[in-house]
Amino acid sequence: MSSKTNPGNFFEDFQIGQVLRHATPRTVTTGDVALYTALYGSRFAVQSADSFAKSVGYSSAPVDDLLIFHIIFGKSVPDVSLNAVANLGYAECRFLRPVFPGESLYAISEVIGRKENSNGKTGVVYVRTRGFNQDDAEVLNFVRWVMVRKRDETSPAPEPVVPELAASVPVTALGLAAPLIPTQFWNRHLSGSPHRFDDYGVGEKIDHADGMTVEEAEHQLATRLYQNTAKVHFNQHAESAGRFGRRLIYGGHVMSIARALSFNGLGNAFHIAAINGGRHVAPLFAGGTVYAWSEILEASVLPQRADVGALRIRTRATCDLPCTEFPVADGAPGQPGVILDLDYWALIPI
Amino acid sequence: MSSKTNPGNFFEDFQIGQVLRHATPRTVTTGDVALYTALYGSRFAVQSADSFAKSVGYSSAPVDDLLIFHIIFGKSVPDVSLNAVANLGYAECRFLRPVFPGESLYAISEVIGRKENSNGKTGVVYVRTRGFNQDDAEVLNFVRWVMVRKRDETSPAPEPVVPELAASVPVTALGLAAPLIPTQFWNRHLSGSPHRFDDYGVGEKIDHADGMTVEEAEHQLATRLYQNTAKVHFNQHAESAGRFGRRLIYGGHVMSIARALSFNGLGNAFHIAAINGGRHVAPLFAGGTVYAWSEILEASVLPQRADVGALRIRTRATCDLPCTEFPVADGAPGQPGVILDLDYWALIPI
Amino acid sequence: MSSKTNPGNFFEDFQIGQVLRHATPRTVTTGDVALYTALYGSRFAVQSADSFAKSVGYSSAPVDDLLIFHIIFGKSVPDVSLNAVANLGYAECRFLRPVFPGESLYAISEVIGRKENSNGKTGVVYVRTRGFNQDDAEVLNFVRWVMVRKRDETSPAPEPVVPELAASVPVTALGLAAPLIPTQFWNRHLSGSPHRFDDYGVGEKIDHADGMTVEEAEHQLATRLYQNTAKVHFNQHAESAGRFGRRLIYGGHVMSIARALSFNGLGNAFHIAAINGGRHVAPLFAGGTVYAWSEILEASVLPQRADVGALRIRTRATCDLPCTEFPVADGAPGQPGVILDLDYWALIPI
Repeated sequence: MSSKTNPGNFFEDFQIGQVLRHATPRTVTTGDVALYTALYGSRFAVQSADSFAKSVGYSSAPVDDLLIFHIIFGKSVPDVSLNAVANLGYAECRFLRPVFPGESLYAISEVIGRKENSNGKTGVVYVRTRGFNQDDAEVLNFVRWVMVRKRDETSPAPEPVVPELAASVPVTALGLAAPLIPTQFWNRHLSGSPHRFDDYGVGEKIDHADGMTVEEAEHQLATRLYQNTAKVHFNQHAESAGRFGRRLIYGGHVMSIARALSFNGLGNAFHIAAINGGRHVAPLFAGGTVYAWSEILEASVLPQRADVGALRIRTRATCDLPCTEFPVADGAPGQPGVILDLDYWALIPI
Repeated sequence: MSSKTNPGNFFEDFQIGQVLRHATPRTVTTGDVALYTALYGSRFAVQSADSFAKSVGYSSAPVDDLLIFHIIFGKSVPDVSLNAVANLGYAECRFLRPVFPGESLYAISEVIGRKENSNGKTGVVYVRTRGFNQDDAEVLNFVRWVMVRKRDETSPAPEPVVPELAASVPVTALGLAAPLIPTQFWNRHLSGSPHRFDDYGVGEKIDHADGMTVEEAEHQLATRLYQNTAKVHFNQHAESAGRFGRRLIYGGHVMSIARALSFNGLGNAFHIAAINGGRHVAPLFAGGTVYAWSEILEASVLPQRADVGALRIRTRATCDLPCTEFPVADGAPGQPGVILDLDYWALIPI
Repeated sequence: MSSKTNPGNFFEDFQIGQVLRHATPRTVTTGDVALYTALYGSRFAVQSADSFAKSVGYSSAPVDDLLIFHIIFGKSVPDVSLNAVANLGYAECRFLRPVFPGESLYAISEVIGRKENSNGKTGVVYVRTRGFNQDDAEVLNFVRWVMVRKRDETSPAPEPVVPELAASVPVTALGLAAPLIPTQFWNRHLSGSPHRFDDYGVGEKIDHADGMTVEEAEHQLATRLYQNTAKVHFNQHAESAGRFGRRLIYGGHVMSIARALSFNGLGNAFHIAAINGGRHVAPLFAGGTVYAWSEILEASVLPQRADVGALRIRTRATCDLPCTEFPVADGAPGQPGVILDLDYWALIPI
């Protein structure tokens, strides 16, 4: 390997408190928004139209929350997970400001935990990644943890540090990225749903009904759009000799499909305010068809604002398995079953 | 099915005079334009370059007419054709204003006809769909009719209402979406064709020569870009048990391919002023190669303007069948043959 | 063939000094930029973010150099290479001005050479193609030569004219498209590389490590985005009876993949100032995985500016062959091996 190329960090390279200044700032444009629509077919009115966004208090249509997440996540890959065996989980993900086309984003991560695995070959690294705009205003903040290879299996295990992470983002921390919504102007015909905060009950389950088959070209376009360089998504020549013999689809691609499908049943849940946790419980491969269903875990008013409430939603996405029966069991690679288990807070007009 | 998800309308749900206010307004951007170019490779100079558009009287490059059509059409799908068996035809489609990047579009339909089929299982529904911009100015108006399933086969047949539809849009209704063209500035080198209105004769046939193979990822990207949610286009898992065992390609995708191919022979026919009728005579599947040819049905000057004339063009698109012999017979699913029969008015400098 | 369609030029049609005014001017937008990112995953900071570009002297992020090249190249195809058997080479390609989203480009070529092949069936045509913006300012200038079919094999061979072409663009001609870079503000964390001009040595070889598999949908989207109409890229129905039985991938697609991969090792080489030469030594087909490696051929300061230096880089791209061993032998169709041999000048901060 040339000294000029990035070998990525190995487990031993991560130190508690270490700050990773990620490369490749990125201006988000209406071009990215159009591609995001073409990739997922999302139909939430706030993100789809300036006219609707303005009618409910935004200056113009904000960029889809998950597009921001994927871009910031992608920046962290070369420094955090180039040598990752697995992307284990997310927590405490908060959307702090709306992002509009024309803004330039960059990302910084801090190492907040590390723990060697008992096999001595790998370890788990925890980082808090923060995304900022061109004015250094923070737009996103989340923790993720990944399993990373050790460079040298004989190197001694460091003292384990495992951060305490909130099981869910407190409702007091929600809503910073949404303006006050004049809900009397929320047009249910244009938004595509008559259902508001009070219409959803805790424990309610919603089958999002539709399914979407993923092609290799699609997930590659998506993952490159996010400038995510994880090798497993792009290189069939190498992967054909790998664990599955196939390219793995970026887990965030599944998140965005599930979110887009969830419009059918959650059409007014216009903004992801926080992601409490997420697990990619099985890999998705091209040719698989993604379905999704959701359960309402909590419904909470927000302090100091009466325009919107927060629904805590657990969305499971499946591969090749319709969700009429609300499947919960973890799937297995290449088999019909659950592939994503996502726990998030969405805002919805009261 | 949860009460929160959209089951779509069945035949019994449509009432004459009923107004359907469609969801998901949409801001059209230069991102959409770029994707449209990437999907079809269209080369009409007016839509391709602000510089050319300005030189012939536009304020900037207008959005491709069919992109507007697809977006407005897509909005009507959840309310009109989610339970459609077939999209039977179009008529009286008029483009009323140019649309420029940055405009936000929405759509409303009115039910103008319904007639139960003799099998008692389905019926035909006629709607007039209108597209508007953010200022409520009408940009598009067309009729389409679809075959829709009945919810309950025992429900009584309503009194049939079949609207009278014009065989073609009258020339007096053409041209509202095009500014006056200072034709002395129409640069034939930049437009890519020396042929003007007078160069085309009624009865003239043009083989557009080129062919374009369609991939699954391409038509899925296109159809999602239009936020068209018809299930048959996206879900291989469900379609593998369906009529053809495959995903059906959105018929509008074929229209756009045929229009893009038609540049080779109709390079100065810069604007679709109206669609008189269209039939998708056979389905297209991924892997098929689309060819097209056109016949000039009429050539008409326009009242009150001497800058452009109108060519009434019948374009047939085929699958896996070059058009050197100008094929006319309807194709069959998955067989080489005609798949689209489109009758439209295009404007061209005099 | 109808008299209305473009049959393309045959060898006999090209006259020395002939000027070809190409069709379809094109406004480049942030939509094109987003698609370019989605197609290649390019990560050079100057082109990725307005914020970074401004910090180093640009008014905003310029459009990727190769995107400009592909667009201008594409315009020349209908007049130069529609009947080409092969695209033989490039030379003297200079980027003369940065292009920013919103600019409208057009192209003109001049025939500067022609030489019939000894088989009497084909000949080589040399053209100098120039790209301009909406203000008629020249943005790109390059020579390419193609092998073109004769219309009539019995037509006499013209007197051969073969232009003298520079083996490489002189350093005095480099840098016109880059502003003066205040290198003290060049942020190595954001740019993704600590390596500057002085860190590279002549003869140094860099394996860019990563590989990218190409899908049919991807190269078709790319080539249509460039409005390149060469038939071999799009028509599987015709190509299945052709030389390879498959669609050929536009050679420029490989150039862009190789350039994007080269970020890993050349992250600060932010601008292609010139292309000295390029050969597509073997065709690429969908399903192939592209790797790349580079060798530093020269390192030169630029006259009259001390902010950036120029690296002359020879990049070879391979198909299905990792570049750890720096392969050099020309590949063969469909076999693992070298497919592109590109010689260019890149600017990099001193």
